[in-house]
Amino acid sequence: MLIVAERINASRKAIRAALEAQDAGAIQQEARAQDAAGADYIDVNGGTFPGREPELLAWLVETVQAVTDKPLCLDSPDPAALAAALPLVKIRPPLINSINLEPDRFDRVLALALEHRAKLIALCQGEGVPAASAGEKVALATELVERLTRAGFALDDIYVDPLVFPLGTDSQSAQATIEAIGAIMQRFPGVHTICGLTNVSHGLPARKLINRTFLVAAMSRGMDAAIVDPTDAQLLSAIHAARAVFGRDEFCMGLIEAFQAGRVAA
Amino acid sequence: MLIVAERINASRKAIRAALEAQDAGAIQQEARAQDAAGADYIDVNGGTFPGREPELLAWLVETVQAVTDKPLCLDSPDPAALAAALPLVKIRPPLINSINLEPDRFDRVLALALEHRAKLIALCQGEGVPAASAGEKVALATELVERLTRAGFALDDIYVDPLVFPLGTDSQSAQATIEAIGAIMQRFPGVHTICGLTNVSHGLPARKLINRTFLVAAMSRGMDAAIVDPTDAQLLSAIHAARAVFGRDEFCMGLIEAFQAGRVAA
Repeated sequence: MLIVAERINASRKAIRAALEAQDAGAIQQEARAQDAAGADYIDVNGGTFPGREPELLAWLVETVQAVTDKPLCLDSPDPAALAAALPLVKIRPPLINSINLEPDRFDRVLALALEHRAKLIALCQGEGVPAASAGEKVALATELVERLTRAGFALDDIYVDPLVFPLGTDSQSAQATIEAIGAIMQRFPGVHTICGLTNVSHGLPARKLINRTFLVAAMSRGMDAAIVDPTDAQLLSAIHAARAVFGRDEFCMGLIEAFQAGRVAA
Repeated sequence: MLIVAERINASRKAIRAALEAQDAGAIQQEARAQDAAGADYIDVNGGTFPGREPELLAWLVETVQAVTDKPLCLDSPDPAALAAALPLVKIRPPLINSINLEPDRFDRVLALALEHRAKLIALCQGEGVPAASAGEKVALATELVERLTRAGFALDDIYVDPLVFPLGTDSQSAQATIEAIGAIMQRFPGVHTICGLTNVSHGLPARKLINRTFLVAAMSRGMDAAIVDPTDAQLLSAIHAARAVFGRDEFCMGLIEAFQAGRVAA
């Protein structure tokens, strides 16, 4: 299970303030904490400060990689910001979050990913209305995977995100996403699937419980990556348990070790 | 989600002691607590006291139904015990836990279920080695469902239990069971699936976490009943969350109500 650590994101107040103040210490503390908690990639998102996104994303890359050897996940919809940040990346390959099927963004992010040999998070999102059903999500995933592999990407370089929407507005969105994950993993053996979790519980109570429940079900369909907060002990415990329950942890040794190390919140 | 409350089971020390002492108060306290916690059925299991199982199961039925209006789930592999207990049942229909494909047990439990118009938990278990793969479980489920419907049972009267085995000895058992549940629910629309949870985590640490993780994934494949401890707040919270996440709780109103009533342990 690949864990992309999500905390360095300008949508969080503390990170936004640290960006505005250029407070490297605050950012680096988050990077170290997520590294220690088991992050495989550390996501960096510089937000949407008008005109300053390239500069801020580049600053985040240099600030974070000064204190961790974990690879980075460059999180921006803006090809200009990615273009500013990619040449600075030390640990290779980085992950780009994200490409989608909007024609201009697809072409520009694809070119950057090829140039810098980056892996890609590919969102099931085109120009039209969001894909609500499992079938629509799988159709977009198929188009993404086929176009990216034709362009030279290995399946192992592609992390498909079927995009889950808030349950409060579409009570079938999580189930559609979960079923799409199962179908994508069956159709393209070797590709990865990934999701962020926070969207699904937007506006609801008990958000972390809902997020964990969605994550566990997605893992049962083969999802092998997630954009999460690795410092959330209950979430990491759910991942340990899910690996054991879904047969990805031979003799449950990973779970037993994590438990013995005090890292499982039962 | 149908909740069969599991606590009145002679495999538990306190229940065994209460049975030996004919301590009706101790049994009735468990019955009331499970009723209040949201049990739909209350399981009664009189254990395997040699020769005394009919008498003890009958005593449990009368003891429990003196304090609850919830229907009972008569839990015994012994047709003689079921025959002693079934005529005493007040709230109809009861659930029989369980029938399987062993020829003698199948015929005798079937006759009792027909005579007393009981619903049936049908275990995916024949005379041979236990069914390990999803395919083997589905084959046994198919035989059970076809034989029971030919005998006059409606699909709605049948709760198929694919039988999960401990992960510590078969790390693929939970995933096989989960996939079998999905296949059974698709093949026989209207039938129910059910599982006990304690087996899956036998011998492992963090058992309740493992049990919840398995339950959530099984629910994501359509499992609509479970044999659980309804007084376990974290487990019930996981069920509330799973109903919302898997689109079985329109506008998440059930989850929101449970949260507002303080019944969700996030």
